[in-house]
Amino acid sequence: MWPRTELIDLLQIEHPLLQAPMGGESTPQMAIAVGNAGGLGGLGCSYMSNDEISEKVAQIRHGTSAPFNLNFFVHAPPVENPNVYTQTCERLEPFYTELGIEEFPHPLAAPCDTFTQSRLECLLDLRPRVVSFHFGLPDIAMVRALQDTGCLVISSATTVAEARWLDAAGIDAIIAQGWEAGGHRGTFQVSPDDFGVGGLALIPQVVDAVEIPVIAAGGISDGRGIAAALVLGASAVQLGSAFLSCPEANIDDTYREALQKTSDDATRLTSAFSGRPARAMNNRYIESMAQSRAPLPDYPTMYSFSDPLSLAGEEAATPGFEFYLWGQAAALNRERSTTDLMNLLIKEAQQALRSATGAST
Amino acid sequence: MWPRTELIDLLQIEHPLLQAPMGGESTPQMAIAVGNAGGLGGLGCSYMSNDEISEKVAQIRHGTSAPFNLNFFVHAPPVENPNVYTQTCERLEPFYTELGIEEFPHPLAAPCDTFTQSRLECLLDLRPRVVSFHFGLPDIAMVRALQDTGCLVISSATTVAEARWLDAAGIDAIIAQGWEAGGHRGTFQVSPDDFGVGGLALIPQVVDAVEIPVIAAGGISDGRGIAAALVLGASAVQLGSAFLSCPEANIDDTYREALQKTSDDATRLTSAFSGRPARAMNNRYIESMAQSRAPLPDYPTMYSFSDPLSLAGEEAATPGFEFYLWGQAAALNRERSTTDLMNLLIKEAQQALRSATGAST
Repeated sequence: MWPRTELIDLLQIEHPLLQAPMGGESTPQMAIAVGNAGGLGGLGCSYMSNDEISEKVAQIRHGTSAPFNLNFFVHAPPVENPNVYTQTCERLEPFYTELGIEEFPHPLAAPCDTFTQSRLECLLDLRPRVVSFHFGLPDIAMVRALQDTGCLVISSATTVAEARWLDAAGIDAIIAQGWEAGGHRGTFQVSPDDFGVGGLALIPQVVDAVEIPVIAAGGISDGRGIAAALVLGASAVQLGSAFLSCPEANIDDTYREALQKTSDDATRLTSAFSGRPARAMNNRYIESMAQSRAPLPDYPTMYSFSDPLSLAGEEAATPGFEFYLWGQAAALNRERSTTDLMNLLIKEAQQALRSATGAST
Repeated sequence: MWPRTELIDLLQIEHPLLQAPMGGESTPQMAIAVGNAGGLGGLGCSYMSNDEISEKVAQIRHGTSAPFNLNFFVHAPPVENPNVYTQTCERLEPFYTELGIEEFPHPLAAPCDTFTQSRLECLLDLRPRVVSFHFGLPDIAMVRALQDTGCLVISSATTVAEARWLDAAGIDAIIAQGWEAGGHRGTFQVSPDDFGVGGLALIPQVVDAVEIPVIAAGGISDGRGIAAALVLGASAVQLGSAFLSCPEANIDDTYREALQKTSDDATRLTSAFSGRPARAMNNRYIESMAQSRAPLPDYPTMYSFSDPLSLAGEEAATPGFEFYLWGQAAALNRERSTTDLMNLLIKEAQQALRSATGAST
């Protein structure tokens, strides 16, 4: 039924489709529906406490016996830089004034930890089938501890060099995340310039460079994209934005309405919200911040500056400060339940693969 | 043999493969070999006089009875801006000093015209099967005059909006040029910010948006990429960088050696050579110029500033000033004659399409 089966076998799923474990937007209900439809559901866990993770894992397990993926950011712990702090206050002052925010945040807070020993222990206890990391990998001993308990470990590469590094670290599969992808870029070697390798170029080059199976991600929202990624040599495909239009996604009405109206060229890479590059709907704040290449506070402390702006903008119904994350193919999204979307994607991908040979359309 | 035949029929070719009509790098020998192998060869004509074009067209026709494509840039005529001139001198002074170039160019020259009435008359006389434009379209009366003599007119879109505009103008096919593509971006509506839509996202969205056939381009250097683009809905695929490694390409040894060593993440979009964004091998000059967003002299007059740098750098064997143009998949290139490469691409693409259904590999 599918051109390659390595990942289907490895992940113990029926279809080579992964739902991206999006930070705030993925939910147990989404992961359950994806798993029950034969794909790999995922949950972004970085912003949760261990108790919350355990609770949500229990919800997933109550709804499905299918495997699932828990995702964690593994950024370097933020370092305070007083000069960067002062410069950022100066840059943001006009926006703070406009929105009537009286005080700059101090000290900067971190809304999420990096991957800690306590997280590891939580996972060794929960034993999800798949643990995925973003921004590289934690200490290799942690990776091995997870693998020793039977977890599969995967992480994202945005270049061939990053993919080779991950392959050498002995993980189980690599997500080749193209430039098109929404949300945070998984990049961990590119800095400060990111030339942004697109999926059509990245996927086959990563496939050629590594021994382990490759999962394609970025700019794929329908069956044509899935089929194309498999033709490029990927063993599976991860979709994120496509699931944002499902009722199971944890996004509010304003976010959802903006998503409905998006176009191919409506998003832009920005570090102006979190401190790390993420693809988001372009707006006035992002555009303004793109005028300068001055450094910003480390991820995730930049949220301390941007969260008040997003919140005040929303309260005042002043557009231009939203942090809405999706990729370059989100205009292809369809509004369906996660279950219906999964079934549609599988059917479309199969049709696209069949029609490739001119067999039938 | 191929999933869609609209363009094969329209262009009167055997295989849905176009060789990109690269400005300085394409040659009659290349176009002949591509045409004789069943694809559409092309010649970049913007930097040639009408006499040179006629001479090279005669060479092509001497070598093949296959159709071919002549390409022209249709930029707005450059406007002098004294402030921009002065600022650019200031920015370039350290480089000019380092390389021992004593005088800034004055006045700035344009190494190529936009599409003029004299060009049109030359083409009405030569009657190539295909005329392609880059940076939009010339006056619509010129487009109609070409179409009335039996020429097919095509142009590039880098966004869905640009594709819709081209479709409404009544041309015959659209090249969906992804972010991955080497050389000048065909963009004509995006300014000054170009968020860069990658091919995986761009191709299906352009296919959905327009009535006419779509040619995929950008980041495609082997049969997997060709097959993937067809699966995404393209009716044909245009490859440029892939042909740079052929002996028929007009590039010097240093260029060729740099190309052999390239990687997925070695290129970058820059306006620092021509005044318009082009994907080129990153180097010290490009990196330095990327530090500022200050405007540069209009295309193509910026060449007056950058040509002396490239030339002096080459003469002094000082790397960092080369203008080497290729896309993000050029590391997949193989060194073969154009004929062998064409045959290989066709075979690989067919295999990739067949293996998509799990039929055979």
